[in-house]
Amino acid sequence: MRLYDSAVSGNCYKVRLLLAMQGLACERQQVDVVDRSGREELLGALNPALRVPTLVLDDGEPLAESNAILCYLAEGTPLLGEDRLERARVLQWLFFEQYSHEPYIAVVRFWVCFAADPPGEAEVEARRRGGYAALDAMERHLGARSYLVAERFTVADIALYAYTHVAHEAGFEMARYPAIAAWLARVASQPGHIPITA
Amino acid sequence: MRLYDSAVSGNCYKVRLLLAMQGLACERQQVDVVDRSGREELLGALNPALRVPTLVLDDGEPLAESNAILCYLAEGTPLLGEDRLERARVLQWLFFEQYSHEPYIAVVRFWVCFAADPPGEAEVEARRRGGYAALDAMERHLGARSYLVAERFTVADIALYAYTHVAHEAGFEMARYPAIAAWLARVASQPGHIPITA
Repeated sequence: MRLYDSAVSGNCYKVRLLLAMQGLACERQQVDVVDRSGREELLGALNPALRVPTLVLDDGEPLAESNAILCYLAEGTPLLGEDRLERARVLQWLFFEQYSHEPYIAVVRFWVCFAADPPGEAEVEARRRGGYAALDAMERHLGARSYLVAERFTVADIALYAYTHVAHEAGFEMARYPAIAAWLARVASQPGHIPITA
Repeated sequence: MRLYDSAVSGNCYKVRLLLAMQGLACERQQVDVVDRSGREELLGALNPALRVPTLVLDDGEPLAESNAILCYLAEGTPLLGEDRLERARVLQWLFFEQYSHEPYIAVVRFWVCFAADPPGEAEVEARRRGGYAALDAMERHLGARSYLVAERFTVADIALYAYTHVAHEAGFEMARYPAIAAWLARVASQPGHIPITA
């Protein structure tokens, strides 16, 4: 498999983390996430959204969207959930991540850590409020649970871990969130775990 | 089943449309999408994101995120895809919809049609550019295809149809998109189709 990848992207890290936990190898091709020129030539035939990660399977079929790739790789295993309701709850958290979490926490991290021309502090702060809303929702949920779904590690945990464990880089005060901290440690202790820098 | 619903929300319409196509009934409880006070009391125990749609199944189990609900209802049918790669491609489009389409087209439609205090025209136009990028990606993809995945109607078509077929209400010039227009007509001709106003 070939992964169109970015070393700093949490969305790409999700895929690398699951592949490592599954003991699967892939070839990594780095794609610049700051200078986006050349995306059409590189990814136009593979991913209509022109984003990373994009995974090309061994038979040449391309697959895009980080959370869809997680589901593909986890299909047929307990990581996707054991029954219809568990699978739907895993998907619920994957959609929560892409709609209510990533656009705030990942975007603020990108602005703070990587962007050449980030917006002003007022816009960053407005976006950070959305990130705190997502973290508040996770803290409420994890206060009574060990993992996001079914009291067992699933791809929902991988998807939410990716940007939550680096949210402090974006200036989020993570000391407010003891249940999230305990859950992050549980995910980091899973067999096969690798850091985002691996 | 009980659906916490909004008559004007495309996300809620996705669920109503699939239920109608499957011949399934549900009780609908209207939730205000302009005045969001009281959400915590109404949905706090059901959906950590406090959004509609939220579906409560016959056994009382709550399920949230429109596209996760579509997958739950479609599981075990061809509407979710016939094999592992088709299912992953359906998910790819569902995540595209929530990340690259809905935050632009649905949000502009909300501002233009429903919001009590919409932002200024510059912000609306900036957001509209993101919507055009999503429509451009769909047009390129549908130019050579009848449906989004596997040349067959799936929940990916339901999810993208919901806000695309009302994008003109948000001021998008849909005459630019002949392949999308033909696809919208194909979706509208599916057995059991109901309009968003039903």
